[in-house]
Amino acid sequence: MKIYYAPNTRAVRIVWLCQELGLPFEIERFQLGDRKMRAPEYRAIHPLGRVPVLEDDEGTRLYESGAIVQYVLAKYGAGRLVPAASSADFAAYLQWLHYAEGMIMPPVNTVVVETFLLPPERRNQSNVDRAVKLLGRMLEAVEAQLVGRTFLAGEFSGADIMTGHATIVAAKLGADIADKPNVQAYIERLTARPALQSAWDA
Amino acid sequence: MKIYYAPNTRAVRIVWLCQELGLPFEIERFQLGDRKMRAPEYRAIHPLGRVPVLEDDEGTRLYESGAIVQYVLAKYGAGRLVPAASSADFAAYLQWLHYAEGMIMPPVNTVVVETFLLPPERRNQSNVDRAVKLLGRMLEAVEAQLVGRTFLAGEFSGADIMTGHATIVAAKLGADIADKPNVQAYIERLTARPALQSAWDA
Repeated sequence: MKIYYAPNTRAVRIVWLCQELGLPFEIERFQLGDRKMRAPEYRAIHPLGRVPVLEDDEGTRLYESGAIVQYVLAKYGAGRLVPAASSADFAAYLQWLHYAEGMIMPPVNTVVVETFLLPPERRNQSNVDRAVKLLGRMLEAVEAQLVGRTFLAGEFSGADIMTGHATIVAAKLGADIADKPNVQAYIERLTARPALQSAWDA
Repeated sequence: MKIYYAPNTRAVRIVWLCQELGLPFEIERFQLGDRKMRAPEYRAIHPLGRVPVLEDDEGTRLYESGAIVQYVLAKYGAGRLVPAASSADFAAYLQWLHYAEGMIMPPVNTVVVETFLLPPERRNQSNVDRAVKLLGRMLEAVEAQLVGRTFLAGEFSGADIMTGHATIVAAKLGADIADKPNVQAYIERLTARPALQSAWDA
């Protein structure tokens, strides 16, 4: 498999996943904001010039990190990192797999756009403040789910790769986790995993 | 199954899905912005007071529309509306299932917040303008995928429920589809489906 990747992006999730599974992969590496990502050659691979994109040996190519996680697990996971559909954890697995993009990442995007991607004269601090406050609220549900749990849906799973990564990013961007001891412990637990440590800047 | 629902929200997707499958369901109905959705009783059901939420007969409860679509299809779909994992359409299915929340809905949220949910004195027209412009770009990839295709991933599927709904909403909010004939035809094709027509205001 080939992963189109940039450090500190959602592409980290895919490298993390492949390393948890021990799957071989190669990386095509960009930097966030790279002009090459907006060039026609790369737009033919991802129409909006984003990462991650996954290509597998069968010539299949897809983007959207949640889709890639589900694709890799279905094709090459051999049942690992996904609760069975008959399991009591299955509904929670799906919910927390989708929670990352549905709830946490929209305000993350706002913060990144308003503090990094927009030229300084077009930035609006009130958009940033509102987004950071919202991130704190989005992590309240994560905190509640983690009471009495080590991971979001039974054993460590694709849901932790998606929403765990989003949670770590939200905390880095200033989301309030001071009142969220379970989120704090969860972040420590995830960042201690070697498969994630080497994925941030692979 | 019980669907916590409000008209013109992501809950439409779940009613649409159940009607396509001919599954029985009941509705707990709210209006967008309803105070009851922020009351502690409903916060116990969805911590952020959002819809949809699905409860099934086994006592399982989950939110996130993408998760609910995948849950209902896995539990009750009997193979309908999902390409098999061995199918050439499977990767596209997953990508377009996730595209809705990953790409289209963040700017949709911005438009809804800035034109409806925020009090007038806190609204910012430049946020709206930027989001509507971005929506037009997000639909370019949908346009490209639909060239030569009737639906996003083979036969009509859960991916059309997710990204089809998001596409219709984006167009309603002013995303530019004048230069996107395939998107226009796709919207007509989806809105002609009786299962969707009655889901907007169920």
